[in-house]
This record gives sequence, structure tokens and C-alpha cells, in this order.
Amino acid sequence: MTIPAEIDTPDIMIDLDILERNIARMAAAVREKGLALRPHAKTHKVTEIAARQMAAGAAGLTVATIGEAEVFADAGIEDIFIAYPLWISPQKAERLRRLASTATISVGVDSAAGATTLGSSLGQAAGSVSVLVEIDSGHHRSGVRPEAAAAVAEASSRAGLKVAGVFTFPGHSYAPGMPAEAVAQEQQALREAAESLAAAGFEATRRSGGSTPTALLTDGSEATEVRPGVYVFGDAQQLELGRCAMEDIALTVAATVVSHHETPPDAPARFIIDAGSKILGSDRPAWASGFGRLIDHPDARITALSEHHATVEWPDSRTLPPLGERLRIVPNHVCLAINLVDDVAVTSNGALVDRWAVGARGKNK
Amino acid sequence: MTIPAEIDTPDIMIDLDILERNIARMAAAVREKGLALRPHAKTHKVTEIAARQMAAGAAGLTVATIGEAEVFADAGIEDIFIAYPLWISPQKAERLRRLASTATISVGVDSAAGATTLGSSLGQAAGSVSVLVEIDSGHHRSGVRPEAAAAVAEASSRAGLKVAGVFTFPGHSYAPGMPAEAVAQEQQALREAAESLAAAGFEATRRSGGSTPTALLTDGSEATEVRPGVYVFGDAQQLELGRCAMEDIALTVAATVVSHHETPPDAPARFIIDAGSKILGSDRPAWASGFGRLIDHPDARITALSEHHATVEWPDSRTLPPLGERLRIVPNHVCLAINLVDDVAVTSNGALVDRWAVGARGKNK
Repeated sequence: MTIPAEIDTPDIMIDLDILERNIARMAAAVREKGLALRPHAKTHKVTEIAARQMAAGAAGLTVATIGEAEVFADAGIEDIFIAYPLWISPQKAERLRRLASTATISVGVDSAAGATTLGSSLGQAAGSVSVLVEIDSGHHRSGVRPEAAAAVAEASSRAGLKVAGVFTFPGHSYAPGMPAEAVAQEQQALREAAESLAAAGFEATRRSGGSTPTALLTDGSEATEVRPGVYVFGDAQQLELGRCAMEDIALTVAATVVSHHETPPDAPARFIIDAGSKILGSDRPAWASGFGRLIDHPDARITALSEHHATVEWPDSRTLPPLGERLRIVPNHVCLAINLVDDVAVTSNGALVDRWAVGARGKNK
Repeated sequence: MTIPAEIDTPDIMIDLDILERNIARMAAAVREKGLALRPHAKTHKVTEIAARQMAAGAAGLTVATIGEAEVFADAGIEDIFIAYPLWISPQKAERLRRLASTATISVGVDSAAGATTLGSSLGQAAGSVSVLVEIDSGHHRSGVRPEAAAAVAEASSRAGLKVAGVFTFPGHSYAPGMPAEAVAQEQQALREAAESLAAAGFEATRRSGGSTPTALLTDGSEATEVRPGVYVFGDAQQLELGRCAMEDIALTVAATVVSHHETPPDAPARFIIDAGSKILGSDRPAWASGFGRLIDHPDARITALSEHHATVEWPDSRTLPPLGERLRIVPNHVCLAINLVDDVAVTSNGALVDRWAVGARGKNK
């Protein structure tokens, strides 16, 4: 696909046709398993994409912050899960109270102290907020051991909050060969946590799991819902993990070749494009083959990244793309890339058809 | 310093007193060497900071993109260098023409083709734009060999552009022990490039070098100006390179402890804060000891980073900071961190005194 002339570089492009296919495919696959789909909107931060996810049957959205929840609630999304162990400041309490008066809000908790603070800060409004206890299923970030879920649920209940269930993020699935093992650990953790709650008299109505690398491997025996995010766009990480193919990539960064590095004879040929870490993001897991991929040149690699430059190592030293040529880059981690722009170019059949605001960009609080 | 209660987390805080001290100190040191100071404003993107740099005697600003130049020209900065080998699209030509009609604009070139395209795209306005030929002094990103500078200058002159000089970015100074060697290479490259120009009949009036790790090591024998950026704030990279001390850090990220990870007995104690890669940035050079530092806890390290979580490894397992405690984080690379927020909290003597818009945030084009 040629980059439409109206698009100057660097810019983020969304292929609407691929986006809609990705949304429909995940919706159908999750529905077939009897699971609810609650896509994580931190990936896209765009209300037009959330609307398409809801129209395809999503049960609601997942977000990471109150600020993201505010944007999507303002856009009419009625059921939002803030999948994060919020520590409630006075400012956050005020905003969460307001939010809970306009939408069905659930939030994560992973400590008795966090639950107590949440409930007491919300006061009268505590009863209108549900909590899901976060479980560590092997990622070792936030979350309690499954057998410790009941204590957090009890503290939540004492604080006036409704206990809706348990959730986990199997983030350790983000490594080659790990998804199957991470899913098994996730399912076991959800079961044990639900048992912990049951023993204390709580029903874990919602048992919520990750995530783009694992969602299609999860069955409905332990989980009731999944929260994939990246599947709408795909990215170089998912590509290298084997969770999507190049033709599933819906988000690319349009870039221009701005410099031909004078390569020493014994070094691989390389050139510089005008897309750096301030539009691609600089995530690079140890197993990734570079800082991003080129959609039409699968053998090329981005070997170095500055704020406004990427160094592309080129497989064929005889035919470097000329200065001024425009290329499409697949970022390693789309969630970071789209958070760096105010709006995105939307294309269909190779033509620019719209621009969408990234409404929840920068909503870190 | 306690984080003022009005500041909710995560948020970026600027210590005005330290900022002004950093600005004054660099201005004095560079003036003493007889060099011009042209600070790189991609670091801060804030017009209030640019105004302070100009008031301290800066000759003008450096920026990376036309979009950044537009923001600072609108704020009244009269002399701006876009230190980037721009490839001029029709959109960029139109914007650069407009810019050159309101401010003194110089731009980078590192190819005859780039210079020709720039000149012909600008048309009548070419004569009002100066170019500096970019030289590769060892960073091996953009830039030509010093002896190839004349060919680019000649193409620029044929295209109707004014040749003002040469510049280089000694980016390879960003590694432990490298600044002194990088400065020597930078000075040699600037001299050879100026000689190359002189042999072709061009005077390199401006001979422009980097950069926070090198600026204070550069003397006035070869360079005429330096372009440091990060010195206004400092960051964990500069700290670990020995280019600033903890008391020089003017930008921190206010964060809250949200989760206590249940650490296995044989593992270092750790906890989770609510500042992740979407406010700290995820740059981590191989030599860095983590993804950031804690300003009041020099032995702590950020060992893992997600979008909204950072994992802090804590030196003293007996006294973890309690849930809800607020801590100040030093990002690895401030240029990425400030680009993730719309505005920043400005403090003086521990009190919130202002909020500044990050006016050039996201101006990638």
C-alpha cells in the first residue's frame, strides 16, 4: 500500500478494514468459547474503536486509569472495569464518585488497605462500585496469591464495596513459547482464587483473564471473561510471538527515508527514517529482533532508535530505498505508539478516509 | 521534599529553583569559553523554559522538527535551528516558508539530494533559510564524513540556500567513560568539515556541537556553539554518566506506592508504583542500572516497567514504604517523559507555584 499523499511523515495510520476484521475475529472467537469480551482500551484510546468493539458484542471496556474511564464514559460506554489496584487520593475519590454516578464501574483491589481506603473515600458511593480482587498468576507484578483473595474480598465488603470477582494479568505470556504455560497458570490461579472467595462466602461472578497472547487459548472452564487489547492493531511484539501475521497489522507509522548512512564496507547497509522513539515508543523486550519492523520489508530491522531517528538495517545493500521514499513501520508496542499522537490517519482501500482523535492519550491519572 | 497535596499522581514536577540554577550554570560556563549556547528545546518543549534560557543569554534555540519550531516562534523566539536533515514534503515546505517569514531559521542537511529538494521546494524563500551541513563525528546515525561536507554545501548553494556552517551530534558520548573521547572526535570532525567547506569557498561561520554530556568539555578552538538540552532538568542517564548530581535533578515524576508484592524469601523486596512507561518513558541503555531512580532513595532501582506500573527493588526489606506513600522518581531520559504529559506542576521551596503547558509535546512533524 502506498501512503496517501495527504499524509505527511511521521504519522500514525490505521487500516480500517484490517481493524474491523481484527475486532470481528476476536469477538467471534471469544463468543464461541462462551466467554465475555472486555477489550482493554488502553491500547487504542480512541472512542471510535471502542464503539466498534461494543457493536461487535463486547460486554464492556477495560481501562487502566480513571482518566481513561472518564473519556470512554463520556463517549457513552456504560460498563467499564479499571483493572488496576487504585490507591485513592482525595482527587481520585471525587472523580470516581462522579464516574460511578454515570456508568457501571468496577475497579481492581489487591490489598485490604487499598480496599479500606477506597471504600471510606467513596463514602455513600462505595455501594455503587464493584471490586475484583487482583491475583498474581505468575507475572509477579501486582496481585495477591490466589489463596489470599478472600482476605481482600472481606476487607472490601467491610468497606461497603460490592465484591464481583477476581482478575489476573498473565503478563509473563509476553515471551516466546510462554503463552500456553501462562494460560495454564492463569486458569489455575482464577480457580483457586474463586475457591478462596467461595470459602469466605463470596461468589466470584466475574473471573477475568488477559490478554492478546493468551485470550484465544483460554477456555470457559475457569474464566468468565478475557481482556485482550493489542489484538485490534497487532504490533511487532505480537508478530514475533506468533500471535498475529503481517497481514493482521492495522497500525503502522508512516516514515520517510531522510539519510543514507555511509556504511563501512564490512557493515550491513543502513539508512535513517524520520520516526523515532517519540512516535514508535522505545519498548524493546530482550527477545525482540529490533525496535520495530517494516511492513513491506520483513527482513529489515530497526537496530537503533533516537527521539526522531530510527536506524534501519537493510538486507540488500545494493538497493537501498532512495532518500525521500516513504515506508510503513510496525512499532514494537502499539499501546505506547498511539499514546504519542493527538490523532491518527484512518485509511481504507489505500485512501485516507478520516482522522480520529486519540481521546484518552496521556490520561495517566 | 514532600509532594504538595494538590498534586495527584502520577504527575511531572519541575523544581523551579533547581531549573533556574541549571540554566544559569550552563549559560555561565559556556559564555566563559567564548561559545554560543543554543539549547535543544526538544528536551523541555515548554515556552516558559525557553524564555528563561534566552534571558540567560542563549543565542537562539535548537529544535528537532518544524512543529517544535512553530511553537517556539509563536512564543517569540527569533532564531531557531532545526538540527535535523529534513526531507521536505509539500506540507513541510509550506510550513517552513511561513516559519522563515517570521523568524531566523536554519536547518540541517546531510545530502545533496536533500539540499536540492529543500531549495527547490522553498522556491523564492530558499534565500531566507540557512543550512548547516551535518557531520558524523562517530555516532554513526545521520551526517556525512567531514571531508564530504563541501559537496553538500555546494548543492545547498546551487539550490539557493545560504550555507552557514556545519554541525554534529556526538551521541556516542552517552555511555560511561565516553564523553572525553567523543568531544575529541567532535572537535576533529568540526575542524575537518570546516576545512572541507573552506576549500570549496564557504566559510563555516557556525560550527555547532552537542550536547549535555559533552558541552562542558568543549572549548572554543573548533566549535562556535553548543546545543545541550537535558542539562535543564538532568535525568537518571546523566546521573549514571556522572554529568549531574542528585541535587541537580529538576524534573521528577510524583508516584504512589499502590501494591506490595509478596516477595519470596530469597528475592529482593519490591513494590509497585503508579508510574509506568506512559509517564517515565521506556528508554533503558544497556549500561543503565534500571528504568529510573528514586530521588530520596539512591539505592533503590526500577527493575521492571509496564505502561502504568513500575517495579521498585528496595534495598531494605524490613522497611518497605507503606501503601499510599508518595515518592519522586527520576526518569532515565527526561526528553521522553515530558513528551508524555500535557502540562507539568512547577514547585518552588516545596510549594506548587504554577502549571506550565508542554506546548511542543507530540510535535513530531
